[in-house]
Amino acid sequence: MSGDRGPEVAVAAALEAVAENEALTLILVGNQAQLKALLHSGHPRIRVEPAADVVRMNERPSHALRHKQNASMAVALRLVRDGDAQGCVSAGNTGALMAFGRSYLKMYPGIERPAITKLIPSLRGQCHVLDLGANVDASAENLYQFALMGSLMASAVSGIPEPRVALLNVGEEEIKGNEQVRLASHMLAQCETLNYIGYVEGSDLFRDVADVVVCDGFVGNVALKTGEGVAGLLIELLEQAFTRGLYSRLVGFLAKPIIGRLLRDMDPTRHNGASLLGLQGVVIKSHGNANELAMKAAIRQAVREVQLEVPRRINERLDDLVL
Amino acid sequence: MSGDRGPEVAVAAALEAVAENEALTLILVGNQAQLKALLHSGHPRIRVEPAADVVRMNERPSHALRHKQNASMAVALRLVRDGDAQGCVSAGNTGALMAFGRSYLKMYPGIERPAITKLIPSLRGQCHVLDLGANVDASAENLYQFALMGSLMASAVSGIPEPRVALLNVGEEEIKGNEQVRLASHMLAQCETLNYIGYVEGSDLFRDVADVVVCDGFVGNVALKTGEGVAGLLIELLEQAFTRGLYSRLVGFLAKPIIGRLLRDMDPTRHNGASLLGLQGVVIKSHGNANELAMKAAIRQAVREVQLEVPRRINERLDDLVL
Repeated sequence: MSGDRGPEVAVAAALEAVAENEALTLILVGNQAQLKALLHSGHPRIRVEPAADVVRMNERPSHALRHKQNASMAVALRLVRDGDAQGCVSAGNTGALMAFGRSYLKMYPGIERPAITKLIPSLRGQCHVLDLGANVDASAENLYQFALMGSLMASAVSGIPEPRVALLNVGEEEIKGNEQVRLASHMLAQCETLNYIGYVEGSDLFRDVADVVVCDGFVGNVALKTGEGVAGLLIELLEQAFTRGLYSRLVGFLAKPIIGRLLRDMDPTRHNGASLLGLQGVVIKSHGNANELAMKAAIRQAVREVQLEVPRRINERLDDLVL
Repeated sequence: MSGDRGPEVAVAAALEAVAENEALTLILVGNQAQLKALLHSGHPRIRVEPAADVVRMNERPSHALRHKQNASMAVALRLVRDGDAQGCVSAGNTGALMAFGRSYLKMYPGIERPAITKLIPSLRGQCHVLDLGANVDASAENLYQFALMGSLMASAVSGIPEPRVALLNVGEEEIKGNEQVRLASHMLAQCETLNYIGYVEGSDLFRDVADVVVCDGFVGNVALKTGEGVAGLLIELLEQAFTRGLYSRLVGFLAKPIIGRLLRDMDPTRHNGASLLGLQGVVIKSHGNANELAMKAAIRQAVREVQLEVPRRINERLDDLVL
């Protein structure tokens, strides 16, 4: 109910997602009348769960937690808690989703705060980056815990036995960075069960130097959105260039099979869906302004984590690692 | 002397820069024997100023300030202080450059800390972003002062009468962000002489929504390097795509006049050269690993700021603005 574009996008994406995946059943949580109207004749693997309220995008999480227990995201998370759903996808207020998540699903033992994480494409592989915006600041202990979760996540999702874990910093030299980052680096260097490789910079995110990159949520959020912004800008400028005049159009047509796939792969829309890591359950946060394609990508991300049993795998191994 | 690639790059760039600009005279500061050897027969508008020492890339600024008064960057900044040079370009240790800059050139009145700033290309224009790494954290007052300097810089360099000034945040809603950013927003909203437009996100940097975007140096540095990383990745992937097989090569050849310029414009190398804003003089910081082309861009940036008399213009108007 609560994304920038309203339930239209979620319903359309849901219909497409169940059509594409025969093993998938979806529960749409929200205003029953509105959702049923959007569903038209409906689908045998989509049902509606009523929720009376909606958390607004600019609402304080603490306010939502106290007054919006019947909001769509709260009801959806209780479905996960009670085992009626295996995962939850929301395009709503991130802070409120996290607050309800902590309240209903609880955290992994030894983890103080959840982190938002996502796989970003790099030159030859992919890289898990966290935190992408769950926490506007993070202590050294938080960063340390994000590194542990990130490493286990990379093992579970990408099948990497000993993921290379790095801290995002403003330089690679030991003297660089703020106090939290330097202290976290010291803690990580002493953790023998983790493959800590030291500092990386923003440009290294795309160079396959690390499998997991850890930072606070302010830095990670800005980095993610900046990267998406540059990719979007370049794709738009390329498309403009290939439509300017007859010759350009012709070459653009010829170039389509060569770069069409590349541009599609780099399209941020197709990478929508970040994990709320730290919660005892699969919770996927979609961009607030996601379109159908993006929302479908977020649903796919939830399906993948459910199938890989990410929360169970992280739970099993976290005990050995937390300080 | 102190960039990652040594004086070879600086000397080669200097020779090209003076050849391209007949009004330009350059002073190369560093190891006299080494520089003279690299200069071969020399150039009438390039002279060498000897400096006995070099600041290492991983040296603490405080250490450099105490023990390296004869380092190349220190000597270069004294040339600016004494009026023997109008500006200084360095690819060396950023922290040390800033420390020496504060010591020799002094700051603008009312400004507590320098900020690193740069023009980044956007969809239809350009955007001044600061701080890009001078300070790993920043108070609300620092952010406020960065906004004032950034606004005056945008007027001086880009000729914008009332630059739109924004704070970089993790969302556009009033409740988003950490304490410093929220407090800075409050202060900026009350400053009548500034055209403050509120929060922007990382993706907005390229959308022409603001002329000046303010953040702390950790966030700015990561955002800049992430953006450059994505641009570099996309350019590399495009070039790969157009060299894979005969058809691709042929179309790549045909596409060159269409996208060659675009790829050149987006190449981070050509945007090298950031300003150390806040110092009473023109000081340009180049990427540590700049190649000749990049170093030449940094020299051009210094020339531009000298010609526009940026420090004088900022000085004249800052008095009216600082709290």
